[in-house]
Amino acid sequence: MVTLSDPALLLIRDGGMDGATGHYEKRLSELTGLYRDTAAHTAAIARSGDPVVYAVDDFRPSASSGDMIFGVTRMVPGKIGDEFYLTRGHIHAKADRPEIYHGQAGHGLMLMESPEGETKVIEIAANAVCYVPPFWIHRSINTGAEDFVMAFSYPADAGQDYGIIARSNGMRKRVVDDGKGGWSLADNPNYRRRTEAEIQTLMAQHI
Amino acid sequence: MVTLSDPALLLIRDGGMDGATGHYEKRLSELTGLYRDTAAHTAAIARSGDPVVYAVDDFRPSASSGDMIFGVTRMVPGKIGDEFYLTRGHIHAKADRPEIYHGQAGHGLMLMESPEGETKVIEIAANAVCYVPPFWIHRSINTGAEDFVMAFSYPADAGQDYGIIARSNGMRKRVVDDGKGGWSLADNPNYRRRTEAEIQTLMAQHI
Repeated sequence: MVTLSDPALLLIRDGGMDGATGHYEKRLSELTGLYRDTAAHTAAIARSGDPVVYAVDDFRPSASSGDMIFGVTRMVPGKIGDEFYLTRGHIHAKADRPEIYHGQAGHGLMLMESPEGETKVIEIAANAVCYVPPFWIHRSINTGAEDFVMAFSYPADAGQDYGIIARSNGMRKRVVDDGKGGWSLADNPNYRRRTEAEIQTLMAQHI
Repeated sequence: MVTLSDPALLLIRDGGMDGATGHYEKRLSELTGLYRDTAAHTAAIARSGDPVVYAVDDFRPSASSGDMIFGVTRMVPGKIGDEFYLTRGHIHAKADRPEIYHGQAGHGLMLMESPEGETKVIEIAANAVCYVPPFWIHRSINTGAEDFVMAFSYPADAGQDYGIIARSNGMRKRVVDDGKGGWSLADNPNYRRRTEAEIQTLMAQHI
């Protein structure tokens, strides 16, 4: 017989979460290779002392299939060249697992890419919820001037494959400052399309 | 090969959710048998014209194992005798599935009961999140004077068993007005403990 877990109370505040079981941070230097303007990235690290650009508090009750993980991510505002601060991005290691992001504060977006290279963008602010379906690569981007905070939940056995974006030399589209207070999409000239065999391997991960 | 779902934007507002794929409401008369003071329940229906006492908007992308459902529930404030308005309550049909409730507005609580009859209560208001672990029966209760609104997420294949509470003649504890602006727990004298065989059948639902 399995043992019972205890109910838990979590409290979202100041862009973090009381009751979390885990915490991690990413500094600007850990995002090497993600921004097109590598000189601006290097200069920003030197100038700013390599700040934390996003932080995650999460609650992981178990890794059991059927259980769920809940957490809060806080992204600081900023730009490297004409690109807004972003997360590394991932597809789930079990690629058929979805994720739900629920805006808490600030303004940003979810940049999503299907295995075949289709791009979708959903803008997120407080009270907006983005459903990232199974099989979509996703990356969060702070397009605002304040901290961008989201709650998230996903299946506990999903896992993350952070290499998928690097293997295609980045996502197909970049989100850049449009110079008018908003954002626009720009092509990534280095993007390598996934092969049919790669796509089929990803999509075969259906339980 | 499976087909890809589209990303979706949902918007939480006015205690409901734009972008929902489903909606249901419960009227006071549909909660017959849940309140101890049956005469007060009957009188309240006659007096009030059988109002909607809670409403749910949900987004169900698929019923696939590994997918997730997200929604918003809004409970109106009120009492029947000394008991606060409550939901019918359930355990998941796949009993090893959890649920996450995230307070949006108002004040209430999650009343939880393990198969063996242990009771846990977690108070929920805006920014508080309640993790209901696998195997716990759960019921929401509006202990405040305003609408109590929560976002929820759970695995898409979880399902609901609404009969489990009736089969024990109610939950073991009732949440009652303490006469001092708060709440307290009272024993349910009609409660029937689940047998060891019933408990083992529930707990065997572990994938």
